[in-house]
Amino acid sequence: MSTPAPTGEFGYIAWLRRVTPSGPAVLVGPGDDTAVLRAPRGSLLVTTDMLLEGSCFRIEECGPFRVGRKAIAVNLSDIAAVAGVPTAAVVSVGLPRVGGRELAEQLYLGMRDVADAFSVPLVGGDTNSWDGPLTISVTLLGEATERGPVLRSGAKVGDWVLVTGPLGGSILGQHLDFTPRVREALRLHELADLHAMIDVSDGLALDLHHICEESHCGAVVFADAVPVSAAARELSAFDGRPPLDHALSDGEDFELAFTVSAADGERLMREQPVPGVAICRIGEIVADGYWIERAGNRERLEPRGYEHGL
Amino acid sequence: MSTPAPTGEFGYIAWLRRVTPSGPAVLVGPGDDTAVLRAPRGSLLVTTDMLLEGSCFRIEECGPFRVGRKAIAVNLSDIAAVAGVPTAAVVSVGLPRVGGRELAEQLYLGMRDVADAFSVPLVGGDTNSWDGPLTISVTLLGEATERGPVLRSGAKVGDWVLVTGPLGGSILGQHLDFTPRVREALRLHELADLHAMIDVSDGLALDLHHICEESHCGAVVFADAVPVSAAARELSAFDGRPPLDHALSDGEDFELAFTVSAADGERLMREQPVPGVAICRIGEIVADGYWIERAGNRERLEPRGYEHGL
Repeated sequence: MSTPAPTGEFGYIAWLRRVTPSGPAVLVGPGDDTAVLRAPRGSLLVTTDMLLEGSCFRIEECGPFRVGRKAIAVNLSDIAAVAGVPTAAVVSVGLPRVGGRELAEQLYLGMRDVADAFSVPLVGGDTNSWDGPLTISVTLLGEATERGPVLRSGAKVGDWVLVTGPLGGSILGQHLDFTPRVREALRLHELADLHAMIDVSDGLALDLHHICEESHCGAVVFADAVPVSAAARELSAFDGRPPLDHALSDGEDFELAFTVSAADGERLMREQPVPGVAICRIGEIVADGYWIERAGNRERLEPRGYEHGL
Repeated sequence: MSTPAPTGEFGYIAWLRRVTPSGPAVLVGPGDDTAVLRAPRGSLLVTTDMLLEGSCFRIEECGPFRVGRKAIAVNLSDIAAVAGVPTAAVVSVGLPRVGGRELAEQLYLGMRDVADAFSVPLVGGDTNSWDGPLTISVTLLGEATERGPVLRSGAKVGDWVLVTGPLGGSILGQHLDFTPRVREALRLHELADLHAMIDVSDGLALDLHHICEESHCGAVVFADAVPVSAAARELSAFDGRPPLDHALSDGEDFELAFTVSAADGERLMREQPVPGVAICRIGEIVADGYWIERAGNRERLEPRGYEHGL
């Protein structure tokens, strides 16, 4: 990947085409007006996420490689959240005019790092330069398995609420360097009847609330059972907020929160069948209300987390 | 669409979901982690384009409605360029913090204006606010017809090069208010064996060169035959550059340039079978070189047009 670089947009595109591998489903990759892909076998999944410099990341802190990585990974996490198989991505970028080419290449290599790990070809994009800060938008396509996508809307009263890992304090590193739970989601989908699922991006308290809204139900979170990350404790020591607060509302953990029947939940907790994942039961779906339970007492839980002001 | 607007990102998303119609192929629209669509019958087409304030448009000149319109239309033009059927779009936006909600709604209504005209549901997106200028990225999905997509790579020596309309001076309005040639492309694809096609976005001299590069051939453009738009003449009167220069290199005309056999070309020119389109023969595919012919003399044609510096 150290071939000499012709300049300009088309030089960059030529470089991209040379270093971009294809995949069996890619009939036409970058370089035409559209990419052409084999039609998926199951339903087609589509998700898009935009990262904006200064809002979603600080380029001087994390560098373009990690930003590129995150741009793909957040989209993979959305495909994981419906237990889908990612198939291809397109990427559009707005690059600052100065140093844009070097930035673009590092961004691209970061994207490739995680895309390759999940066998996702980058099949197209749009490269622009402008006077604004760095902006990257990725759209990821996927396909549902034969079991169909797992939506937010399928939670049932009595379901157990489970998560795939510790939460909170992602700003210390996890928000950039996480591995999206694509494989884990597919494995869980094989092993149990997943009723509802979401990836924890806005914060558990807010994301579980999304499940409740879509499923027309309530939930209770067991305060003592929420797995609190080391980073949440570290942040707590720094800012004095309880570690649990961080775990409930920091966001960008990119773990999965999902609901299953009590029987499936009990079995998953006992068997812990997914390598590298400690499945935790953190709550239960109820008919009404949104609660946190501490030592047997229920209080209202505020669905707070990360939200863009508009 | 004048329902009262709850505030914040989720208020905006709630509004979006309420005012966004679905479509027969949309199994799950906005509001889950991914959209879920019926798999296309033919090959899946994907294209993405990003519009950046100050680079691609000036919001104070054109307003958010027209920007929204363009954001969808430029992607539709890419689907037209392969003679595909557009099926669904996702949209990510970076909104300025002040006045973002009003801007977002006007943008959205502009997007809907053209998306509705082509029966393209907006099935998902990502809404962000930041301190930077307005940025919009649209990814459009489509499907190929039974005849397959028309690529840039199929031109053959002896082909006629045709365009669907006048070129140049798009900055005076066409670049914002064009109607993408989706229907015309599909009609042409039924009527003739289209060998290669592209939409004129970077400028004819550059876009036809893309066809030559992908098809490993050359071309000659007949200077007198290039349809020059009224806007190109208007601009010429203002800046002194010949109208033909504008027609060859301004870009963002969003007409189609395509190649067909001489027999098909002759028939299309005679029959003019596409309502609202005056098909013009502007050149011919040759084995080598890239030429412009004036009064029987061939000179080299520079593949110049719009290119982002990187």
